[in-house]
Amino acid sequence: MKIRAPIEGKILRENDRIAGGLRDAFARRGLLCLNFISAPGSGKTALLERTLTSLPAGTRAAVLTGDIQTDNDARRIARAGFPVRQISTGGICHLDAAMVERALAGWDLDAIDVLFIENVGNLVCPTSFDLGEHAKIVLLSVTEGEDKPEKYPGIYRRAELVLITKADLLPYVEFDLARARALAASIHPAIQQILVSSRSGEGMEQWLEWLAARVKSAAAAPVEVHG
Amino acid sequence: MKIRAPIEGKILRENDRIAGGLRDAFARRGLLCLNFISAPGSGKTALLERTLTSLPAGTRAAVLTGDIQTDNDARRIARAGFPVRQISTGGICHLDAAMVERALAGWDLDAIDVLFIENVGNLVCPTSFDLGEHAKIVLLSVTEGEDKPEKYPGIYRRAELVLITKADLLPYVEFDLARARALAASIHPAIQQILVSSRSGEGMEQWLEWLAARVKSAAAAPVEVHG
Repeated sequence: MKIRAPIEGKILRENDRIAGGLRDAFARRGLLCLNFISAPGSGKTALLERTLTSLPAGTRAAVLTGDIQTDNDARRIARAGFPVRQISTGGICHLDAAMVERALAGWDLDAIDVLFIENVGNLVCPTSFDLGEHAKIVLLSVTEGEDKPEKYPGIYRRAELVLITKADLLPYVEFDLARARALAASIHPAIQQILVSSRSGEGMEQWLEWLAARVKSAAAAPVEVHG
Repeated sequence: MKIRAPIEGKILRENDRIAGGLRDAFARRGLLCLNFISAPGSGKTALLERTLTSLPAGTRAAVLTGDIQTDNDARRIARAGFPVRQISTGGICHLDAAMVERALAGWDLDAIDVLFIENVGNLVCPTSFDLGEHAKIVLLSVTEGEDKPEKYPGIYRRAELVLITKADLLPYVEFDLARARALAASIHPAIQQILVSSRSGEGMEQWLEWLAARVKSAAAAPVEVHG
């Protein structure tokens, strides 16, 4: 949606205020929050399903999943046995911090180690909206073409990690993996990159190690927050 | 971008005014204009490349291609030898009618039979913006999952045709084609559906027939427009 800059600024400032509150609430409890962003159909839900069923025993995970319509993803994820809530945006192209705040109402954040937020399938709009997360993670499926980092640089600049998904389909598509990696790195030199397949399990170990390290570091550093 | 309804209404009314002018300009000349909308990486550019090189001799085609950043798509399409212009939206998540109007400046519309507009890769935001086109066409690649019509119903309601792309990958993915078709039809019973592969050529004949019929009907009915 194209809007005038002053209005956009006001909306984003209000979002940042609420996101700041969420960030404090997460930090106070040592809860790790991750915000997954990708094009529709890049495999966010499949990755979360596989991740949830692969977590070390005792990990207390929860999921918020955003969609324009339907609660399909929430129903898929609920099968893994972790708490999940659907945010239906009713046509809006991204999640914002207020939606996350409302969806968390009534949940005991002290009983959650890691909160996964699956954003609306969209490479553009979710990029600008801070949800109070520790890190944004962008997914790029090998069926989409290796040029996507260059075409959607905003999310690659802001993400800490790119998960290159659907590795099992590499033999069947023309996807220049080295070029995809180089483009992502050229936009954001510090970005980390892991090639995964939720179907074959390739790369899951490396991704779960990344995740475990982040859960540990968030838990180790609960922050004293005033207010 | 979430914005207040009155502002959104004003933006869309202004867009509709400009789109109306474009529609008149196209109708006066019997020029067919098609607006292609899909998720990033669904194969819009590949389809246009194959379509352009398959058009009947003498078809005067032209392309506008929209992207957040880069002119990669325009350079790919230019190889087919038809006029092409890139619209770089500079971060905006969709094309609007004013961008199309500006991009067409200086082109002789009388020398164009069919104008293809490749929208920004996004299933949400481009849906609301009329570009003066005769028809919207939505692409759904088989790698995205068959649930997309249900999750992004807006574009399926407004599109006349869904091109189910990357048919050559069907053997390698879990994609329930019958269910995808049924979901699209449940949202928009009159929508037409063609399964295609820009790589293998499957379905191209049927798509080119659809296109030829629309080019013919637009050319046969140039409309007298006042103003």
